Amino acid sequence: MPSSQIPVAVLGATGSVGQRFMSLLDNHPWFKVVALAASDRSVGQKYSDAARWVLDTPIPEYARDMIVVPATTDAVQAKIVFSALHNEVAKDLEPQFAKAGAAVCSNASSYRRGEDVPLLLPEVNADHVHLVKQQRINHGWSGCITTNPNCTSTGLTIALKALDDAFGVKKVFAVSLQALSGAGYPGVSSLDIMDNVIPNVGNGGEEEKVEWEPRKMLGKFIETLEPPSSAAGTSPRAGIELANIQFSAHTNRVAVIDGHTVCVSVQLTNPVEPEIAIQALRDYAAHPSARELPSSPRPVISVRDEADRPQPRLDRLIGKGMTTVVGRVRRDPILDLKFVVLSHNTIRGAAGGSIYNAELLVNENLL
Amino acid sequence: MPSSQIPVAVLGATGSVGQRFMSLLDNHPWFKVVALAASDRSVGQKYSDAARWVLDTPIPEYARDMIVVPATTDAVQAKIVFSALHNEVAKDLEPQFAKAGAAVCSNASSYRRGEDVPLLLPEVNADHVHLVKQQRINHGWSGCITTNPNCTSTGLTIALKALDDAFGVKKVFAVSLQALSGAGYPGVSSLDIMDNVIPNVGNGGEEEKVEWEPRKMLGKFIETLEPPSSAAGTSPRAGIELANIQFSAHTNRVAVIDGHTVCVSVQLTNPVEPEIAIQALRDYAAHPSARELPSSPRPVISVRDEADRPQPRLDRLIGKGMTTVVGRVRRDPILDLKFVVLSHNTIRGAAGGSIYNAELLVNENLL
Amino acid sequence: MPSSQIPVAVLGATGSVGQRFMSLLDNHPWFKVVALAASDRSVGQKYSDAARWVLDTPIPEYARDMIVVPATTDAVQAKIVFSALHNEVAKDLEPQFAKAGAAVCSNASSYRRGEDVPLLLPEVNADHVHLVKQQRINHGWSGCITTNPNCTSTGLTIALKALDDAFGVKKVFAVSLQALSGAGYPGVSSLDIMDNVIPNVGNGGEEEKVEWEPRKMLGKFIETLEPPSSAAGTSPRAGIELANIQFSAHTNRVAVIDGHTVCVSVQLTNPVEPEIAIQALRDYAAHPSARELPSSPRPVISVRDEADRPQPRLDRLIGKGMTTVVGRVRRDPILDLKFVVLSHNTIRGAAGGSIYNAELLVNENLL
Amino acid sequence: MPSSQIPVAVLGATGSVGQRFMSLLDNHPWFKVVALAASDRSVGQKYSDAARWVLDTPIPEYARDMIVVPATTDAVQAKIVFSALHNEVAKDLEPQFAKAGAAVCSNASSYRRGEDVPLLLPEVNADHVHLVKQQRINHGWSGCITTNPNCTSTGLTIALKALDDAFGVKKVFAVSLQALSGAGYPGVSSLDIMDNVIPNVGNGGEEEKVEWEPRKMLGKFIETLEPPSSAAGTSPRAGIELANIQFSAHTNRVAVIDGHTVCVSVQLTNPVEPEIAIQALRDYAAHPSARELPSSPRPVISVRDEADRPQPRLDRLIGKGMTTVVGRVRRDPILDLKFVVLSHNTIRGAAGGSIYNAELLVNENLL
Repeated sequence: MPSSQIPVAVLGATGSVGQRFMSLLDNHPWFKVVALAASDRSVGQKYSDAARWVLDTPIPEYARDMIVVPATTDAVQAKIVFSALHNEVAKDLEPQFAKAGAAVCSNASSYRRGEDVPLLLPEVNADHVHLVKQQRINHGWSGCITTNPNCTSTGLTIALKALDDAFGVKKVFAVSLQALSGAGYPGVSSLDIMDNVIPNVGNGGEEEKVEWEPRKMLGKFIETLEPPSSAAGTSPRAGIELANIQFSAHTNRVAVIDGHTVCVSVQLTNPVEPEIAIQALRDYAAHPSARELPSSPRPVISVRDEADRPQPRLDRLIGKGMTTVVGRVRRDPILDLKFVVLSHNTIRGAAGGSIYNAELLVNENLL
Repeated sequence: MPSSQIPVAVLGATGSVGQRFMSLLDNHPWFKVVALAASDRSVGQKYSDAARWVLDTPIPEYARDMIVVPATTDAVQAKIVFSALHNEVAKDLEPQFAKAGAAVCSNASSYRRGEDVPLLLPEVNADHVHLVKQQRINHGWSGCITTNPNCTSTGLTIALKALDDAFGVKKVFAVSLQALSGAGYPGVSSLDIMDNVIPNVGNGGEEEKVEWEPRKMLGKFIETLEPPSSAAGTSPRAGIELANIQFSAHTNRVAVIDGHTVCVSVQLTNPVEPEIAIQALRDYAAHPSARELPSSPRPVISVRDEADRPQPRLDRLIGKGMTTVVGRVRRDPILDLKFVVLSHNTIRGAAGGSIYNAELLVNENLL
Repeated sequence: MPSSQIPVAVLGATGSVGQRFMSLLDNHPWFKVVALAASDRSVGQKYSDAARWVLDTPIPEYARDMIVVPATTDAVQAKIVFSALHNEVAKDLEPQFAKAGAAVCSNASSYRRGEDVPLLLPEVNADHVHLVKQQRINHGWSGCITTNPNCTSTGLTIALKALDDAFGVKKVFAVSLQALSGAGYPGVSSLDIMDNVIPNVGNGGEEEKVEWEPRKMLGKFIETLEPPSSAAGTSPRAGIELANIQFSAHTNRVAVIDGHTVCVSVQLTNPVEPEIAIQALRDYAAHPSARELPSSPRPVISVRDEADRPQPRLDRLIGKGMTTVVGRVRRDPILDLKFVVLSHNTIRGAAGGSIYNAELLVNENLL
Repeated sequence: MPSSQIPVAVLGATGSVGQRFMSLLDNHPWFKVVALAASDRSVGQKYSDAARWVLDTPIPEYARDMIVVPATTDAVQAKIVFSALHNEVAKDLEPQFAKAGAAVCSNASSYRRGEDVPLLLPEVNADHVHLVKQQRINHGWSGCITTNPNCTSTGLTIALKALDDAFGVKKVFAVSLQALSGAGYPGVSSLDIMDNVIPNVGNGGEEEKVEWEPRKMLGKFIETLEPPSSAAGTSPRAGIELANIQFSAHTNRVAVIDGHTVCVSVQLTNPVEPEIAIQALRDYAAHPSARELPSSPRPVISVRDEADRPQPRLDRLIGKGMTTVVGRVRRDPILDLKFVVLSHNTIRGAAGGSIYNAELLVNENLL
C-alpha cells in the first residue's frame, strides 16, 4: 500500500467507460483523481455539466465541480493516466503520456497487440506486467502503457486460465451475448435492439479480438524471447509467446444493459468430468501479487450451481462487478466441456480492469 | 389440390401456438376449421372469450364465435387434427385420434423420437412422410401421427440440409438465442428477462432436442431397416437411419418476442469457401412434392449479405415467416464455416410447420 | 378516383418516416413514386443502399433500385410532394416546391401554425383543406402546402372530435406514452430507454404542440375571417378560428417501438354517461369527402371493451394502422370522462396521414 | 434508539416484496429477523431454497439457512411482524398477530381503509400513528396493525404533502407509469409488456386506491372525532378526517423493473410560480419524530433541475430508494402546476415503507 495517495487522471472522462472510471475511483484507497480530460466540446465545463451521466449510481461528489481539461500532457499531470479514449485518439495520445512519464492504463484496443505492451488481467497473468521494462528500453520512456483486454475476452480468459492451469486447454468455441453499455453512449439505437438481437458487434472486429487476445494473456512471458527470423541481427528480448489454443468466436448484441454472457465449449488436453472442472474453477487463485489489491475480485471465480445461472441482471454485481461468474458446467458432446461465463463489461471488462492493472503496477513498483 | 375443403381441428387452440394455428388457417385454400378444443376451463365458451389473444393480428372472424369443445374423439371429428397440446397431454390423446382415423399433425415433442413417427420438415425430408405406412401397420390405425421438430432445430436443420446435400456435414456447434413466444403464455416472467438473458431453455431438455432431432431429419428413410439386434426375430421394416453428424448445443432465452437466432459452426466432409456455401444455400430447393404446397416457403432459404443480418425483428417475416434466413456465412478458425440462422419459431417452427406437414400428407395421398 | 396514376415524390425518403412513406405508397391505387430525395450523403445511391431499412416489412421492390436525388425543384418533379424532412429543412424547401406547382403534403411541423396552412386530419376537418385557396392567393403559388399534426395530437384529436360533435368538449388532460419510432433513427439510445421512462419528448416542444394543434383542427373554417385588430386595413379572408378548449399535456417516451398511447380526461359541455360516449365514438363517421379514400380508416374509431385495452403491440395495426383505437371509457372524478387513445404514430400519425391528406386534395380537385 | 435489538419476523418472505424486506433488514441497526414465514409449499425449507431470489443484490447471508415456518402466531413469535402477504391472506392473519401482541407493519391493502388503522408515510403523517391506541381500545389488542399505502400513492402523497402544507392542494390529476416489480413474481408475462404498455393495473382497483389513499394520509388526525350520524349513541373517538382534495387517476404498466413514475397536475388554494413550489418541495422536512430514524429518507424530496428527469433507472436509488424524486415542475394551463414524481415501488413504496413505519412505532413507544 502506497504511503500517500497517488495522483491519477482520466482521459475520455465523460463517456460511458469514463463515467465508470470516475465512479470506481470515488474513495479509492490509493488513488486520487487530480485531472479529467475530454474532447474540446467539454473542455472548460464542470464535469457535472459536461458528462451526460448514465450510471444508476449518482455522479460522485468529488467530481461534480472539477473542470474538464484538454487531453494534453501539459494539462494533465498525474502519475497514472487512465485512458477511456477511442482507439484512434488513444493511438496518438497514449505514447505522448508514456513519454511524459505517466503510467498509462488503457482500456483502448490500440496497443493490445503491441509486442512490448502487456495485455493484463492481473488474476491471470500478473507476471506479464514486467514487459513494461522492455517497453521502456525500446522507446526510452519513463512512463509506460499497459492495456486490459476487450470486455468479452475478459471473463472468458479468466475462466479458461483456471482450466488451462489444471487440465490444459486446446480448443475453444465461444458465442457471446453482449450488453449495450459495451457500445458506449449513445451507442446502439433503441430501434435496433428492442425485440431484437444483432448478430454482430463492432463491425466484425470483435470476433478477431476474442479469438486472439486470450492467446496473448494465456501465453508465456519470456525474458529472452528469440527475435523473429525476419529481424536478423536483433538481440533476444522479453516478450510473450502466444498460447497454442484455437479459438472460434461468434459475437452478438442483446438487450441487456450491463454484463456480457458467453457460451463456451472447450477441448482439454487432459479431459475431466464437470465436477472436477468446477472444483478447479472454484479453487482458482490469482497470482499472489494480484490477490490482495483494492480491486482484486473476491472470489476470482464464482461458480453457480443453479441450472439457469449466471444471468446478467442477477449476477453481474457479484464481487462488486469484478468477479467472473461461471455456471452450467457440463459435458460437451463434441469437445469436452460446455459452460457459461458472465462478466460485468464496464467494471471487470473495462474501467475496473484498468484500475486493477494500475494497482498491480504500484504493487510491483513499476510506476 | 384437394377437390373440396378438408375439415380440420385444432387441439389446444387457446394457447399461443394454438392461436397461430387459428390465424394461419384463416382462409387456408385446402383446410376448413370445423372444431377447436381446449382444456375444461374453456369448454363451452366462445373462442374469443376463451382465448387471451396475444398475436398482433386480430383474432380471425371465422373463429370468434366458435364454441370450444373438449379434446375427445367424440367431440372433435375432422380428417386432420392439429395438436398444440402440452407434451404430457399429447402423449395420451394423440394416439386416440390416430386410432379414430385422424391424421394428427403435432407440434408436441411426445412422439418425435418414435421409430415409426415421421419428424418432418417437408423442404428437408418429405420422403420420410411415408413412414406413416409402417406406423399404421404397427398400430392398426387408420389415422396417423406426424410431428414437426423443436423450433430451434427447425431453421438449423434446413440450413444444414442444404450444406449436407452439397458438401456433407460432420460436426455442428449451435448456440441459440430464443424468443419468448417459444415458452408459451404466460411463459417467461417479465422480471426474468428484462435487462437479462436466461442461459437455459426448457429445464435443459432443449439442448438434447437440438442435438438429436436434426440427426433424424437428416437421416435416411429406409424401407427395410434391419431391426436392432436386441429385437431378434423381428423382421425388417421401414425406419429412419440417423445421420452420422455430431451436435453440440447451448440454448438461451433472450428478450425477443418472435424469431429464434442460432449461431452455427460446422465441419464439412468436403470443405468449401464461404461463397460456395452461400450459393448452395441460395440454390437449395425442397423435394418436388413439398415445393408447391400452400405453405411452402418462398424461398426455402434467404441468404442476407449484410454484415449484421439476419435480425429477428427485421427478418422473421420473410416468406410469411416460413423462410429460413441465413447470414454472416464466413470461415470458422476451428471447423470450416460459421453462420447465423433465423427462423420464426411459432410460424415455421411450430404451427406453420404442422400445417405444411398436413399439406404434404394430402399431396402424398396419405390421409 | 383519378383517371391515371399521379406522379408523386418523397423528400427525406431514407429516414424512418420516409421509409413508411415508401412502404405505404407501394401499390397505391392513385399514386406512383417518380422521385425520392434525401440528403447529400445519399444522393446518387440506390435507395436500397442509401436507406438503413428499419421496418419489419421488406423494402418495396419498386424502390430498391431508384436513385436518390437532391431535394430540389429541378431534380424532383411531381404533382404531389410528400415531405418527411426535418423542420428546419422543411421550412426552406417546402415553399419552393409549392411555388413550383407541387402540392406539398408535409409531416414536418414548420407550417402547422401558418394561418393559411391547413392542419389536416381528413376524418376530422376535411373542410379545412379549402384553406389552400387563400394560401395560393396570399403567396401567388400554383402549388400549396398542407400539413398533418404531431403524432400525439393525431389520435387524441380524432377521439375528441367525436365527443365534441356530440357533447361539446371544454377541457382536456392528456398524458402520452410515446413510441420510440417517433424520434426517428437512430433517435433514442437504447441505454436511455431500457428499463426506463423518459418524462419528456422533443426537448419540451411536444407538449406545446399537443396543447395547441387540436384547437386548430377542432376549430371552424371561416371563409371571411375578420383580420386581427392589429392588422387594420386588411380585408377579411379565409382562416381557422381556434376551438375554445383548454388543454394540458404531459408527454413521455416509453419502450415501445410503434404506437402512441394517450391517457385522457375530458370535461364536456353536456356531460354524459360512459356508455353514451362510447356509442358516439363508435358511430363517428368522417366527413363524406374523406370517407371513401384509399387511406380512409375503417373504422375511424374502434372502441375496445376489454379492461386493459388498447395496447400498442396488440392494437396499433387495427385498420391497417389508420384507425384510432379507444378504450377504458369511464367516469372521471374531477372532469367527466376518462379514456385511453392509441394511434400508430408513423402510419396514422405521420406518413399515412400525409398520404390521406393528398388523397383528400385529389378528391376535392385541389391539385 | 432501542437498548437492544428487537426481534422481528417477515410473513410472505419468499415473494418479491418479502425479498426486499429480507434484504433491507440485513444489518438493520434496531431489528433482528428471528422468523420468516411463507406458504405451505415452502415451510420446512431453507430460505435460500424456498425463495426464487429476484433482486440484483445477493440473498443476505443471515437469511440463507433460516428455515421457513408457517404464518401462525405459534410459529412466528416476534415483537414486530412485517406482512408481505396477499390481501386475502392478510385479512385473516394480521388481526391474529395483533391480538397475539405483535405490531403488524403491513404492506397489504386489506386494512388501509380501516377507520382505526393508521395508513402511514412517516415523513407525511407521523402523528397518525397514535391512532393505534384507539385501535387497541376497539379490539382489546395488545399488538396493533399499521399499514403503508399503495406504491403509486406513496411518492405522489409525499410530494403533495409539501405543496399542501405550503399552498393548499385542491385538485390532483395523476397518471402513473408503473414498474413490473409492483405486480410481484412471476407477475406480468414478458409477452404482455415487451414493446407494449398495459393501460390498467391490478384489474382496476389501483386507480381507486390512488384516488382515496392520499386523502387519508393528508387528512387530519382528530383525537375525538364525532361518530357518523348513523352510529347514534356511539361516543366520539380518535380518527382521521379525510382531506378535502379531489383526485383523478389513470394507472399504466410499463416495461420498467423498479420505480413508479407519476405525471401530476395540481390545483392549489394559493397558486404560486413553479420556482416557489420547487423551493417548498426542497425545503420539506418530515415531522421531527420521523426525521432521524434508520430508514428516514435523506433528503425526503429531491428536486431535479434537468428537463428530462426524474427517470426510473437513473433516479430510483436516490436516498437508498427512500427519497421521493420530483422534476419538471412547471405551469399547468388548466390547473396550476404540472410535475413528475418518481418513487422506488418496492423500497419506499413497499418493504422500506413498512420498516420505516416500524421504526416510528418504536420511536413513539408504541410497541
